[in-house]
Parts: sequence; structure tokens; C-alpha cells
Amino acid sequence: MKANPTFSLNIPTQLFFGCGEIERLSTEKLPGKKALIVISAGTSMKKYGYLSKVQAQLKLNNVDNVVFDKVLQNPIKSHVMEAAALCRQEGCDFVVGLGGGSSIDSAKAIAIMACNEGDLWDYVSGGSGKGRPYTKVLPIVAIPTTAGTGTEIDPWSVITNEEAQEKIGLGTSPYTFPTLSIVDPELMLSIPPALTAYQGFDAFFHAAEGFIANIANPISDLYALEAIRLLYKYLPVAVKDGRNLKARAKVAWASTLAGMVEATSSCTSEHSIEHAMSAYYPNLQHGAGLIAISEAYFETFRNDCMKRYMKMAEAMLEKKSNRPSDFIDALIIMQKECGVRDIKLSEYGMKEEDLPKIADNARFAMGGLFRLDPRPMTDDELLTILEKSYK
Amino acid sequence: MKANPTFSLNIPTQLFFGCGEIERLSTEKLPGKKALIVISAGTSMKKYGYLSKVQAQLKLNNVDNVVFDKVLQNPIKSHVMEAAALCRQEGCDFVVGLGGGSSIDSAKAIAIMACNEGDLWDYVSGGSGKGRPYTKVLPIVAIPTTAGTGTEIDPWSVITNEEAQEKIGLGTSPYTFPTLSIVDPELMLSIPPALTAYQGFDAFFHAAEGFIANIANPISDLYALEAIRLLYKYLPVAVKDGRNLKARAKVAWASTLAGMVEATSSCTSEHSIEHAMSAYYPNLQHGAGLIAISEAYFETFRNDCMKRYMKMAEAMLEKKSNRPSDFIDALIIMQKECGVRDIKLSEYGMKEEDLPKIADNARFAMGGLFRLDPRPMTDDELLTILEKSYK
Repeated sequence: MKANPTFSLNIPTQLFFGCGEIERLSTEKLPGKKALIVISAGTSMKKYGYLSKVQAQLKLNNVDNVVFDKVLQNPIKSHVMEAAALCRQEGCDFVVGLGGGSSIDSAKAIAIMACNEGDLWDYVSGGSGKGRPYTKVLPIVAIPTTAGTGTEIDPWSVITNEEAQEKIGLGTSPYTFPTLSIVDPELMLSIPPALTAYQGFDAFFHAAEGFIANIANPISDLYALEAIRLLYKYLPVAVKDGRNLKARAKVAWASTLAGMVEATSSCTSEHSIEHAMSAYYPNLQHGAGLIAISEAYFETFRNDCMKRYMKMAEAMLEKKSNRPSDFIDALIIMQKECGVRDIKLSEYGMKEEDLPKIADNARFAMGGLFRLDPRPMTDDELLTILEKSYK
Repeated sequence: MKANPTFSLNIPTQLFFGCGEIERLSTEKLPGKKALIVISAGTSMKKYGYLSKVQAQLKLNNVDNVVFDKVLQNPIKSHVMEAAALCRQEGCDFVVGLGGGSSIDSAKAIAIMACNEGDLWDYVSGGSGKGRPYTKVLPIVAIPTTAGTGTEIDPWSVITNEEAQEKIGLGTSPYTFPTLSIVDPELMLSIPPALTAYQGFDAFFHAAEGFIANIANPISDLYALEAIRLLYKYLPVAVKDGRNLKARAKVAWASTLAGMVEATSSCTSEHSIEHAMSAYYPNLQHGAGLIAISEAYFETFRNDCMKRYMKMAEAMLEKKSNRPSDFIDALIIMQKECGVRDIKLSEYGMKEEDLPKIADNARFAMGGLFRLDPRPMTDDELLTILEKSYK
């Protein structure tokens, strides 16, 4: 980072954070009269009563709703197109994403396609996307029930084009920032331990990548170090005792902070590599994929931004650090504490001979993030990261 | 602060920060085609070429302008009304505040009155204001040339009703947030040492008051401690060597962060008391007034939020603190380093017999901030603060 960096800040989202804040849905001015509520194909939004709670709050606010409940863990373009058609047909004037990142990211992409002609990939930059601009999007309301993506406070939406096998982040600031986001940690009490860890590490890497990115700046640094500090301290607690509301709230806030890192700095190529892995192996949880490659990834740049590694270590360990490897040591401790040390790609059915193809896909589909690494990563280094993480 | 606080964040301003960023005015999409540029009655905007620079950048962006150049150090309502009439008459569709807080605060109030009937005090809450709501405001662009108010990134505007002798903060989130703010430290190189100190301490107190306010929360705390840390370290450098661009940039960034504290927490009654003093003695610089009462003000609450005082001390001294008075000691060191220790109210022509009247005015005009103090301040304590700061 330069001595006198230039940077910008523009996070227009109205965020409400805290236990019970979900009830704001019944009292705040909402951006429309009929909502398309987007949830996953899983059962948890119904089983835990979150969907009915949201519907009841909207009703109190005189807002109608239609539900789209097909979103997959790695959400796909054809569902986005189907839901956008439903949104137009039903005359919905805003989109509510309720659930994990997949539901909220889908809501954003649906909000784009409800107002714009053609195919989602017309508006995607990277891979086979056509990169067309758009300036109109339905208002988006985000209600996360997981703590990881930060999508509630950034403009990004990650969708997989299942035909092209491309998993790409799209979004255009300020259009795809949610208008309103409600982060209520009480909606996160039911996340099982392994998912809590995967999601929490996703947030951790948003912060850590954003901190070593070559566009890091004073505001993203402030958010990043606080997210890193909080996650190191509270993620293991939330994993071990999911009913610990204090730990859930700290992890949720850290995840939102890490979303603000994504909105002011950027992820780096660690995310490109993981997206390529999930594009081929959609059952690989995003956070698990990141954890699997993280040690090798951060080893790659250990000597390229030593001070920044030490600052991250200091935020985690709350003491002075004088070796960049302190950060990697602390990362390993944290993985052990969360019970997610030694995740290997081979466990997910990945074939070793596919690794070069994954490396190529990472550069093709999300090459932009490689330009934000601390220094250019060589092809050898990229393949080595995958190989070291394989078994 | 509760263990699991609820809080909100909504700072919609597009901020550009850094040296040379003023040139964004010629390239960014601006919120209108004809700007009312609001500057002070002083000479510096013309002498240092800032006005002509802004006009040239606007012209490159095909935007016309009209200049209103009467704003006083403590801006007055009659100028706001006059400029709003000019704005309507000239058909300006946005307002640019260029200069210190007085110019930007005036720009905000003008932007309100250009769209709303009646008198500014119809829309003011507190004092003799009628507290009428409004939902329409011209877009505001803020270009600070001082580092202190934080008004470039908060919704507040402080205007004096000269007839009523009321100096009151007004503004309604999100309407009076600037649409666009450009903080370019190169525009701050010419501020003389004493004003640099006064303005820097204004920023410092925005952060410190916002940190002890009873509505402080995790996001305001993050901004506040970083602002406090930066100002303790760099304000003395900027005071002693005004050409030190690094120090100017750090102080400018701290001031913007402190504005974000005002947007997410609040000032406390220290600001109410100072506003009352300036309402009667308009030649008293706001920052100087705050410095004069600060030791007595922070002594008042020393034992009411001890941990928070120690955290502020730790941010300043970069070492562990175990006494709340460490914060007050560090504040005094900082005042000495900046050459502003021992400012006394009597130096500004204030009469000792006026102190009770000032105390009453503080409660009457800006009583709301007293409710945000760590605990209710008694009338005796309020008068004691003024008396201790008098001579």
C-alpha cells in the first residue's frame, strides 16, 4: 500500500444488526408492495419457521409475497432465469433473499434479470460472459441465516453457469447492493457445527484476502483486521456450542464486516481457485474448498507482504508478531479448533488429473482476481496449490 | 454497551479519498447540471485557487455553476435562506459545499430550503424549532478543505439562528448525507497551525464522545478508536509541519472516520455545551471551545465508563492502560503537543455571569445530546464544567 493511498467507499445498504431485528421487516419502509422471496431447495427455512416469520412480518407491513424455493447450494443460472420470469409474471417489485449466500446471491441475480432482457450471462464479465452493462435492478432485501458470505453488504452475486461450468461473481456497484439488510443472529442458532465452520472460514478468507490484496486500503484494512480478530476468537466457540448467542452474534458481525471488506477491497485468487473447484464439483461446499487450499495459498505469498501477515497474526494472537509464518500457524490452530484441519480435495471425488483443468478454469472464469494478488502467481504455483491440497 | 447490542449502519455517501482526487469532479457522474457552490466569506477558497479549480473541473464535466460566498465561521440562518432563494432563482439542481464545515453545513441546509417552503427553523428539532419533517432535498456534494467536522460523511448540519441565539444541529438521515464527497488532503496544506489543531480536536471529540455515548456500538467503536489512534499520532505532526502531506492525509482520514462515528453513534453533551458558547460568542472557534471544556467534561464521566476510557488511552498510547485517568492524561499531552493547552473561555470575551445562561441554552437548544451521555449530567456538574474552563 502506498504511503498516501487513494480509495473510495460506497456502501449504500441500510443495515440492521442484532437479535430480534428481523421484526424490522414489519415496521421499516420497504422498497415495494410485493416481494419475491427466494429460498433454497433445502428444508431449513420452513423447518425452523424463518420463512413463515418473514411472511408474517411482510404481511404486517401490507406487503404481498411469492416464494421461489429451488435454489441450490451452488446456485445455477437456469434457476435465476426461471425465478426472474416468475417475478415478472407475478408483478413482484422487489426481491427478498432469505437464507445462506446462495439464496441472497440468487436474489441479486434475479433482481437484475427481472429488469433486463436476454440471458444472465449477457451481463457477466469473465469466462464466456458478454459483459453488457445494466443500470436497472429491482430493489433487494437480504436476510442472511448463515454467517459467511457477507453478500448482505456487498454488491456481489456468485452464480454457476451449469452448461459452461463457470462459477463467476457478478454485480455492479451500487446497483446490486441490497437496499435493506437485516442480520439477526437468532436466525443462525440452528446451523450445524461443520457448516458453521465452513461459512465462518469463508468470511475469514474474505477478510484475509482483502487484507493482502494489492488494492487494500485504510478502510478495508480496518474492517478486515476486526473481522479476523473476531473470527479467530469466536468462530471456535460458535462451532463447539451453536446455541451460544454471543458467539453467534460476534461471528455474524465479523461476517458482515468481511462483506464490507469485499465492498472496499476484494477477494484474491484464492476465491477464483475455489470457484473453479465448485464449478466442476458442485457438492463441494465453498468454505470447505477454501479451507482445503488455504494453507498452500497463503504459503505462496508469505514473503511478499510480510508486514501484512504479521498484522493479521497480531489481530489473531493479540500479541506482537515478528514472523509472517505466525499467521499461517494461527490459521492452522484455528482450523484445528474448529475441527476442519486436513480437509483434502480428494475427499470430494475430485480427480487428480482434473487439477490442470481446474487451474485453467480459475484463470479463465475469474482471472481478474489474480491481478489483485500481492504479486502475479505463476502457473506452476497455481498447480502446486491444488496438488498440495489434494490428498 | 449490552453484550448483544442492536445497531444500524446506513452511510449512503459515495466517498473518494486521497491526494489529487479533486479531479474526480470532472469525471464522475454528478447529480445535476448546475451547481450552487457554497463557500465562506473568507478569502482562502479564492486565494489558494480551490474555487477556480472546482469550477474548472465542473466545466470539464459540462456542469454550470453559481457561487454563494457569504458563509460565516459560525454559519447563520439568514444566509441559508438567502442562498436557497438564489438557488431556486438560478435553477441550480445541486449544491456543492466547498471549504470548512461551515460551508458544507450551509450547503446541506440550503439543499433543504431549496426544496421546502417556509423557514429553516420550521425543520429544526430543538430550541424554538418546529421540527417539521421533510423528504426532499437537493443532492449535496461535499469538498472539505479542513479536517475536523466530518460533515462530508454524516447527515448533520449546524446552523445558528442569530435572532434566537440558538446553534443547533439539524439533518435527517438519509436525506442530508452528501451524495458525493471528495476528501483531498492536498487541499488542506494551507491551514494554519492553530486552526489545524482546533479542527483536529473537533474530530477527536466526535470520536471520543461517540465512543462514550450510551448508543455506542461495534461499528461506531471501530471507527472511533481508529480516529482517536490516528489523531493522537498525527495531529501534532500536522500542527508542527503543515506541509507534511502524510500527516495531513492521516488527519483528514481520521476526521472522516470521526464523521462516520457521528453517523453511527452520536456526539454527547460536550457538543451541546460548546454550541451554546458559540451561539453567544460567534467568534469562538468550535474546536477551541471544545478544547477549553474538554478536560472538565471528560473528568465528569471518568468513573462511569472506565473500560471505555482505558480503551481510548490504549489506542492513543499503544500500551495497556489500567486507569481511566490515563485517557485524560493522554488528552492533556496531546493538547500540549498541539500547542492548545490552557485555552480559557475568559480569553474570548465571555462574561462569568453568562455561564448559567450558557448552561441553560445548552439544555434548551441541544438537550437531546445530554440523553446520550454515559449517565445524566446534573445541573451542578454542567455549571462546574463551564466554571472550571473559564479562567
